[in-house]
Amino acid sequence: MPKLVDHQERREEIAHALWRVVDQHGWAGASLREVAREAGVSLGQVQHYFASRAAMLTFATEFAAERTADRVERGLAALGQPPHPRDVLRVVLVEMLPLHPDARASSRMSAAYVLEALHDPALRRQAGLGLREGRATVERLVRQAMEQGQIAADRDPDVETDLLLALTGFTPLLELGVVEPDAALAAVDQHLDRLFSP
Amino acid sequence: MPKLVDHQERREEIAHALWRVVDQHGWAGASLREVAREAGVSLGQVQHYFASRAAMLTFATEFAAERTADRVERGLAALGQPPHPRDVLRVVLVEMLPLHPDARASSRMSAAYVLEALHDPALRRQAGLGLREGRATVERLVRQAMEQGQIAADRDPDVETDLLLALTGFTPLLELGVVEPDAALAAVDQHLDRLFSP
Repeated sequence: MPKLVDHQERREEIAHALWRVVDQHGWAGASLREVAREAGVSLGQVQHYFASRAAMLTFATEFAAERTADRVERGLAALGQPPHPRDVLRVVLVEMLPLHPDARASSRMSAAYVLEALHDPALRRQAGLGLREGRATVERLVRQAMEQGQIAADRDPDVETDLLLALTGFTPLLELGVVEPDAALAAVDQHLDRLFSP
Repeated sequence: MPKLVDHQERREEIAHALWRVVDQHGWAGASLREVAREAGVSLGQVQHYFASRAAMLTFATEFAAERTADRVERGLAALGQPPHPRDVLRVVLVEMLPLHPDARASSRMSAAYVLEALHDPALRRQAGLGLREGRATVERLVRQAMEQGQIAADRDPDVETDLLLALTGFTPLLELGVVEPDAALAAVDQHLDRLFSP
């Protein structure tokens, strides 16, 4: 089905153009028109692929989330088999932080999307779904580790899941250079060490 | 100096209008023109008070930060004297989370400002300064508590400060309803309990 593939490829090209526009001009500059210019296509073509700015943002954010998932997959494949739950959680958490260009693009896209979602009910639902999926993944890992006795049985899996997700709070601190990457990683490791302490 | 006061008042009115615009139309809609309409003044008047969109955003964000500082002050005044460092840290942390309308306005303003700062060097410097000040406050509280023996001496004050600041990572989870306010507060309390455990 070559037509479908082309369609997807073109949409991904437009998503990349959107990321570059957001990077250079910020969220406020991310109009369909500006994205078309950056992608080197006509406004009509962008509108052919995306019915609205919201649809374009949703696609670009989901595409960023897929790329993050791919990076996590690769990170997990590089671990010893079977991997230790602590290492799995570390890969998931670290890929959510803006520590290299790809992760930075995903992280900025997602921050902008959340802000945009606050005043757009459809985006809000969509963004909430994405975050809830992420939370469910982390919670599953925490519960597995508890069942296997690697996290103490008296921990509350919900609280521990939420505290792990809250580590994404390093994002603005890293982006503005208030916390250095090494310090953020040291803090993540410290948190994981305590979680996995007997 | 009534003129100075009027000037400040008018700027604060415009800042409030900006918050409402951001709330209703998102960051992308926060043009000087739209803010003027919302504030019920002419575009020329907004331009009289703010030389640029960036200047307006900086003022509105700093104003939001001042209001957060005021809420923290009131929260601290309500504690027993002298307050326990754990309670002081809790007031500081909780006021950074979007748990009530005022804190939500500050938190959204600050998230939008960080995004905008990523592609604007002057804003970036300014936003970094604000975050660094916040970090210094938390670090001072952590070090005091360590000196007074309320936080164990073998903790690393830098790591603990960063982990406390990372708790602002609850912001998007709260904003999108992925984590409920009670759960976020329970997690913050759990984190503080462990930090202050002997």
